[in-house]
Amino acid sequence: MPKVKFSPQDKDIEIADGTTILTAAQAAGVYINNLCGGNGVCGKCRVQVINSRIHADMHSMSFLSKQEITEGYALACQTRVDGDMKIIIPPESIPEEPKILLEGIQVNYSSPEKIFLHKIPADPASLIDPFIQNIYLEMGEPSLDDNISDVDRLIRELRKKTGYGFFDISLGCLRGLALNLRNNGWKVTATIARRSHAWQILQVRGGDAFEQSYGVAVDVGTTTIVVQLINMKSGAVVGVAGSHNLQSRYGEDVISRMIYACGREQGLNPLNTAVVKTINDLILSLAAEKGINPDNIYAIAAAGNTTMTHLLFNLMPCAIRLQPYVPTASVYPQVSSKEMDIKINPDGAMEVLPSVSSYVGGDIVAGILACGIADRPETRALIDVGTNGEIALGNNQWLVCCSASAGPAFEGGGIKYGMRATRGAIEEVIIEDDNVRYKTIGNAKPRGLCGSGLIDCLYEFSRNHIIDGDGTLRLETDNGRIVEKDGESQFILAYPDETENGHELVVTQSDINHLIRSKGAVFAAIKSLVDYVGLTFRDINAFYVAGGFGVNLDIRKAIGIGLLPDIEPESIQFVGNSSLMGARMYLLSAQAAGRSVEIARMMTNVELSNYQPFMDEYVAAMFLPHTDRRLFPSVTY
Amino acid sequence: MPKVKFSPQDKDIEIADGTTILTAAQAAGVYINNLCGGNGVCGKCRVQVINSRIHADMHSMSFLSKQEITEGYALACQTRVDGDMKIIIPPESIPEEPKILLEGIQVNYSSPEKIFLHKIPADPASLIDPFIQNIYLEMGEPSLDDNISDVDRLIRELRKKTGYGFFDISLGCLRGLALNLRNNGWKVTATIARRSHAWQILQVRGGDAFEQSYGVAVDVGTTTIVVQLINMKSGAVVGVAGSHNLQSRYGEDVISRMIYACGREQGLNPLNTAVVKTINDLILSLAAEKGINPDNIYAIAAAGNTTMTHLLFNLMPCAIRLQPYVPTASVYPQVSSKEMDIKINPDGAMEVLPSVSSYVGGDIVAGILACGIADRPETRALIDVGTNGEIALGNNQWLVCCSASAGPAFEGGGIKYGMRATRGAIEEVIIEDDNVRYKTIGNAKPRGLCGSGLIDCLYEFSRNHIIDGDGTLRLETDNGRIVEKDGESQFILAYPDETENGHELVVTQSDINHLIRSKGAVFAAIKSLVDYVGLTFRDINAFYVAGGFGVNLDIRKAIGIGLLPDIEPESIQFVGNSSLMGARMYLLSAQAAGRSVEIARMMTNVELSNYQPFMDEYVAAMFLPHTDRRLFPSVTY
Repeated sequence: MPKVKFSPQDKDIEIADGTTILTAAQAAGVYINNLCGGNGVCGKCRVQVINSRIHADMHSMSFLSKQEITEGYALACQTRVDGDMKIIIPPESIPEEPKILLEGIQVNYSSPEKIFLHKIPADPASLIDPFIQNIYLEMGEPSLDDNISDVDRLIRELRKKTGYGFFDISLGCLRGLALNLRNNGWKVTATIARRSHAWQILQVRGGDAFEQSYGVAVDVGTTTIVVQLINMKSGAVVGVAGSHNLQSRYGEDVISRMIYACGREQGLNPLNTAVVKTINDLILSLAAEKGINPDNIYAIAAAGNTTMTHLLFNLMPCAIRLQPYVPTASVYPQVSSKEMDIKINPDGAMEVLPSVSSYVGGDIVAGILACGIADRPETRALIDVGTNGEIALGNNQWLVCCSASAGPAFEGGGIKYGMRATRGAIEEVIIEDDNVRYKTIGNAKPRGLCGSGLIDCLYEFSRNHIIDGDGTLRLETDNGRIVEKDGESQFILAYPDETENGHELVVTQSDINHLIRSKGAVFAAIKSLVDYVGLTFRDINAFYVAGGFGVNLDIRKAIGIGLLPDIEPESIQFVGNSSLMGARMYLLSAQAAGRSVEIARMMTNVELSNYQPFMDEYVAAMFLPHTDRRLFPSVTY
Repeated sequence: MPKVKFSPQDKDIEIADGTTILTAAQAAGVYINNLCGGNGVCGKCRVQVINSRIHADMHSMSFLSKQEITEGYALACQTRVDGDMKIIIPPESIPEEPKILLEGIQVNYSSPEKIFLHKIPADPASLIDPFIQNIYLEMGEPSLDDNISDVDRLIRELRKKTGYGFFDISLGCLRGLALNLRNNGWKVTATIARRSHAWQILQVRGGDAFEQSYGVAVDVGTTTIVVQLINMKSGAVVGVAGSHNLQSRYGEDVISRMIYACGREQGLNPLNTAVVKTINDLILSLAAEKGINPDNIYAIAAAGNTTMTHLLFNLMPCAIRLQPYVPTASVYPQVSSKEMDIKINPDGAMEVLPSVSSYVGGDIVAGILACGIADRPETRALIDVGTNGEIALGNNQWLVCCSASAGPAFEGGGIKYGMRATRGAIEEVIIEDDNVRYKTIGNAKPRGLCGSGLIDCLYEFSRNHIIDGDGTLRLETDNGRIVEKDGESQFILAYPDETENGHELVVTQSDINHLIRSKGAVFAAIKSLVDYVGLTFRDINAFYVAGGFGVNLDIRKAIGIGLLPDIEPESIQFVGNSSLMGARMYLLSAQAAGRSVEIARMMTNVELSNYQPFMDEYVAAMFLPHTDRRLFPSVTY
């Protein structure tokens, strides 16, 4: 079989002729960017083939300049192994560790009434009441006057200590119980789990294990998975870690992953294994770093979109993708860490936040929980601009939500030099005529643009009349950065001498069109939802914006391009990873967990794909800032 | 290694020198009677060693006549392999299939008010409400107007169909659900299990499986296990089968089995495996015989004494045996057939009737349930004379119970020619002077005596003044059947020409002493319990007698020896296998299952081992019929 060598990773593999280079890379353990799941439509998996004639198809070539084709560039997913090959993976095709939004909401103390988080009491431990608990018990030894069964004795003590009424016991725990109690002198810690309306005793260990009880909150993002290790006694965050979701190798958005899972035999298992492995790797490395035995971690609460949740539970997501968009479940059972293969205490358990519909998941429920939207009478909104834009709106009386296929543009997807908010991403842009200033993450040489950088570009292009209201680059002006190349207009943001790979970094006309479609979809969804409930933007007390734009989203510029409604910027707050914060609240508090189910149940899902007013709003929003300028009175360009 | 051959089974095995013959037989798959668990104290494992010098110890020889020792007889558990051997297992050492009490209570229609069973309605199906149910559902397909999740749709239909409020779902069922519903056109049977306060969905199958739903009721006896296969739709008994508990090879009573389980490394597992195998063999052969796929059997309800229940669940029974006699559990969790290795549908479940204390088990709770003692205001009693005698007393307001170490005498244990109620057992005896008439089970040549035969003997010995009031055989009389042999007095019940093995069949003085101790313990327990609650025998409306005496227990003779109280024989009813009947009621009815827990909880256990009045009663009862003849006015011998 031919041998394929990859640099700069210095890995090789023998693999059959006809295999795609992408598959060969995956087999060799080499990760290549791959936004569309290997369908040749994102152009992110560019590689340079050194010593072989390549067979890239015409379609793939549209992503490459003539020079690049001459130099042997091709798309890894569309190019097949044909004899021995040496492949160079260029920097822009190598996934880089993201600048992860690790912490939850950054509380805006200047307007505390808008955020409920300030209500966390001085001693948060007093509120801690998780779905898995360690209870230390000191029992009297049995005597002839008190010879009830071991289980009855255990439950009698648990009732005294907790006040809970009903207890059941697992067979595994029952089997070791008699010896366990006697060998430990009737002083043990019982691990109990809340199940429907009773508690189940999962484990009994000698001594007082309460001090050493940990839990994990997980944000199961499509792109990035973040894990927080929590002390279950104090509620404190012991540590936090994030990494790429290993599922990315099967496609970068939920649609490509569903296609992967449903389009072949045994397509689901690799996706499940990948997400479980990502979570396990994070937990184990975090536990090792903090000197914590993973056996002392008992509980996991996770939040993710509906597809990610299905893949985590190893549920076929196929019906999510097709009309009428039906998930297998929206409220998920408690499962044992053992049956999920999660590497914490094998008698531990996992719960996942409930979802609302196929495209409004537990992450948005977590966000509403974290922002306290359902806790107060004022109407507030949450806008989560991920790969799929999700909007929720409501108060303690009602909640509506919708999702819009905004596309991954603000996470860098489908944009020629778009990238996630990682090192080298341009996150801020200011343009005065042909004078461009930018700031990159890590102050590195630019590799591309993340969401906040793209928003800035679009805003600066408009403000400087580099583009028209419909987004057309004005070739007719004398701005030297506007050029025509490879058949389309482009704006040169950085010249070859400025960039990491020595190529010029451009924003193309199709990038701009793409961004306008995305911002239009998000705004149209917000507008449609607000209209749907008979309100105006002015009736909404606060907008919380969550998502992977990068940390430094400029709210004024996001309004300026018509992505967010034109209200006082102080009413809009960028909240970062509200999903993780919600998962932590769920982990620690029975009240929050119960509230999350109420949120999911009380939320009315407005299906925009079927809703004519949304289509009208969408068309109207495909302009900068909007076809109806009265909606954006503060925008002056 | 030396080779040991067994006849008449024609099996052989190569096994190390020094192994006991009993162990060699077990290894070869040859079953030998073994009441004491291999401790050399029951004398039931007599074998004849043909071609080898044997090394029986002095102790064992006390069980053998001089002639037998000359002929090579020895106890298999005390005799070690020493070179090649040929072993003959004599008929009396081969366990025979018992004449099992397969059916439950034989309703006494002449006094129907005494038994609640006549209250079963004309259509018993209307009362069937088991802990596992198959529910057939026809769901509407999802549409954009009704695109709730698959689980929500399933639960919505289940709520409509059953009226139950709360449902949960197992991960296993969840994982296959989406495909399952779609592949079966939304017409499925859901298998649901009652768990604490909610129902868990265990399995979803295409089509209507309700017609093919079966369950199993099991009486897990120390000696004999009986299985009833039940149609879960009609409640009808489809078939019944019983066999020896394979645990017998580790000792025949609960004490020897506990010693086996607790006295060595890994002693518990073989006992668990043996009882599970016995149950599986019975279920599978019964299912095959009736043409039923074991996959259509979903539920098992079992009743057994506390030790048997512990061994079934694989729980260490060690604390049961020692003061203060503490079981691991008295109410047991529902367990899946998979985790128990029970060969029915792997998503099926098992429940076991709750017990009261270490020595009052689920079998007696089942008996009280079956006899309806807790259903009515009249005070009634249940006397279960098994290896361990158990007495319960009460009505719908209160229940007390106790257990007495009666010993296995009435099941044939510890009696020279005692045997269970199997073919060849003498079950009835009438003596006029030295004229003995008897009836054997199956009208075979006599092999020994079962419980009813022993009761008859004791009664006839007394009536004919063959023994004194304290049980001493009257050697001084001219009855030719009373002889002195091997150092003790004996009564020859059958001469060598009458018996199966051609040896004479005798009742020895120690047998008589043993029986008097047993009957004394049972009566003393009854008397103590009745006194304890401040009643007299006349206050008790009915006595139900359960146990393995054999089918034809003569109540008048049982009174005559002072085993049962001297009240009108019509008030005493032999009810046979009330444990199996209770297990079937538990299987079919949530109400009965709930009632069984109430029975176990409301029952006050009187610990006789610590109770002086019992000791006094015991001493007073060691006489025929009793030292206080006023208690037995009707006994005229």
